[in-house]
Amino acid sequence: MKVHVPKKTLAETLAHVERIIPSRSSNPGLSLLRIDTTTEGIELSGSNMDIDIRSRFTADTEGEGSYALPAHVFSQVVRALPGDVVEMEFDDKELDLASDTFATKLQLMAPSSAPELSFPAKLEGGLDAAALVKALTSVRYAAAVADYQAVFRGVKLEFGASTTRAVATDGFRLAYYHVETSSGLEGDVVVPARSVDELARIVTEGEVELGLSEGQLSVHSGPFSLNLKLMEGTFPDYERIIPQTFSVSVTVDAPKLSEAVSRVALMADKTANNRVDLFVKDGSLQITAEGSYGRSQESMDVLQEGTDPEIALAYNAKYLVDALGPVAGDVRLSFSGGGPASSPPSVLADLGDPSYLAMVVPLRTG
Amino acid sequence: MKVHVPKKTLAETLAHVERIIPSRSSNPGLSLLRIDTTTEGIELSGSNMDIDIRSRFTADTEGEGSYALPAHVFSQVVRALPGDVVEMEFDDKELDLASDTFATKLQLMAPSSAPELSFPAKLEGGLDAAALVKALTSVRYAAAVADYQAVFRGVKLEFGASTTRAVATDGFRLAYYHVETSSGLEGDVVVPARSVDELARIVTEGEVELGLSEGQLSVHSGPFSLNLKLMEGTFPDYERIIPQTFSVSVTVDAPKLSEAVSRVALMADKTANNRVDLFVKDGSLQITAEGSYGRSQESMDVLQEGTDPEIALAYNAKYLVDALGPVAGDVRLSFSGGGPASSPPSVLADLGDPSYLAMVVPLRTG
Repeated sequence: MKVHVPKKTLAETLAHVERIIPSRSSNPGLSLLRIDTTTEGIELSGSNMDIDIRSRFTADTEGEGSYALPAHVFSQVVRALPGDVVEMEFDDKELDLASDTFATKLQLMAPSSAPELSFPAKLEGGLDAAALVKALTSVRYAAAVADYQAVFRGVKLEFGASTTRAVATDGFRLAYYHVETSSGLEGDVVVPARSVDELARIVTEGEVELGLSEGQLSVHSGPFSLNLKLMEGTFPDYERIIPQTFSVSVTVDAPKLSEAVSRVALMADKTANNRVDLFVKDGSLQITAEGSYGRSQESMDVLQEGTDPEIALAYNAKYLVDALGPVAGDVRLSFSGGGPASSPPSVLADLGDPSYLAMVVPLRTG
Repeated sequence: MKVHVPKKTLAETLAHVERIIPSRSSNPGLSLLRIDTTTEGIELSGSNMDIDIRSRFTADTEGEGSYALPAHVFSQVVRALPGDVVEMEFDDKELDLASDTFATKLQLMAPSSAPELSFPAKLEGGLDAAALVKALTSVRYAAAVADYQAVFRGVKLEFGASTTRAVATDGFRLAYYHVETSSGLEGDVVVPARSVDELARIVTEGEVELGLSEGQLSVHSGPFSLNLKLMEGTFPDYERIIPQTFSVSVTVDAPKLSEAVSRVALMADKTANNRVDLFVKDGSLQITAEGSYGRSQESMDVLQEGTDPEIALAYNAKYLVDALGPVAGDVRLSFSGGGPASSPPSVLADLGDPSYLAMVVPLRTG
């Protein structure tokens, strides 16, 4: 079984597949790459249990065959090849791989040792790839990192009749991004945040096909097919906790505000929620922080609106900076005070892109 | 005590000083930056016990004063400043620092809590900075990383009457680089490899002044003054172990050989010295490696010379790749075989730069 393939095609495809496959696993079969040759070309596949991935590309092959070998060693060798073309010859035990002056013989495993994967041939839904990636990457920061109920470590995708929405929350902050087109799918699913990161790297342009089946979201994008395992559990009913009325709001350039908060927060005590204080009055937003090294402050002119003449609230600086991240231009921050014990969540809206909304719960200061 | 200084000057200088000062230390004084203001400008200084560093630059000051504060917090604040100019006002307890819309008050420590440093005013020797850095960076890889006698973890500088030489060895490989000018100093010193790394980063262009005093090498370069603590112990008498005659030598492009060795070595067993085998015969150099994943080989045409028709030797691939690193063009490798139990060291010479020589001890293959 002989195959000829351009090195660039093989290396680029393999890079994505390799990233999914664990380099070490208590289940050694999981670190294998499966290579299937067909009359049209090659399929590379692997899995980390949360994500199954397959990549197909055309190549000059002699027929059908199935093989398996350690993914990371194969990837390292392919990346290092000196020539533009890779010649591979498989037998039952070894892969003979040659490129220019270099040749290697790699031990093969039984293809049955690699995970048994199946990818739906036809998917019923679809979305613009760029819109899907924008939605996912705009909210992903708000997912919890660890030590939380599983569902908080995922991104919810709401497939509606006329919209698609991505939402993430860890209970202290929330973000959603609204795509104004339907995917053709219906229902809500929660995708692990790490799978979202991989999806955003692999899906790049054009149209992405989407399909839902028992416990998984399937994706076709270019040469790649993915099955993303879904999370179980109930996502919180977040709509009802997003405030609709506010006593003060300010409009300000988001990147400038983000920089100022980061700068002031250098003085904040990392063990005390990285606290920064915001004070709004007379069209000025004052940011202050204090800790064992000293105290900092910065003032910015803002467009102030609302019924109250002033407001003072405290936040975890990281949460503010994260929430401002997706906003390239002006942001409107809307606040309500509720006394030192607890204040209602504050809301950030991107004035240049109404699809994005973020919510941050102020720190208790009492 | 007020000071005005451009942010860029302060941030760039501070970056080097901050890198030396430990961010945490069992001796809290060691993590302090000392700031001295004079009528001409500012001096920033600190130490990690192996390296003392001071940087001087002109600034608009009101007079003399000495202060100390945690280096890393100060550096973070300075890097993040929004304006082009920094205004600093020191009193006994606090530094008021302002830049554009931002202001901070940083707690000051007694200057006596910071290390007491002294830098010689005038140094008797000197070298071209680029030549010194080239010498140091060409040999530094051959210093031992750990678990070896201290002196092997340093770079020896031999200040001779007409030459200056840098040498490093870990007992299994050796490198030297020869600068054909005298520094004006006399004697041999061993500088810790980590101090060499810092020196190479700080010394960039022009002339570097050098001075030797009890236990330290002092350096002036641009705005920086450094004292590098020297290592004690006896450096091995390496000259006598560098072979002068060889049975086979080959000439080949160093970067191409380095790539081929790295590529083939992907199959080598990391737990078995990362072994690659070299076989020279009929003007061809064959590189092979074998391990649990499979075996690889690559052949290169070489200019072969010497008295023996062929030779076979084994090496730690990393040692070969390291030794080839400083060579941009053709390298001559000279070998002698001594049977499987032990072979004399092999020698690499840079045909484009006779200043560099490297030696690698073959692996025992018996």
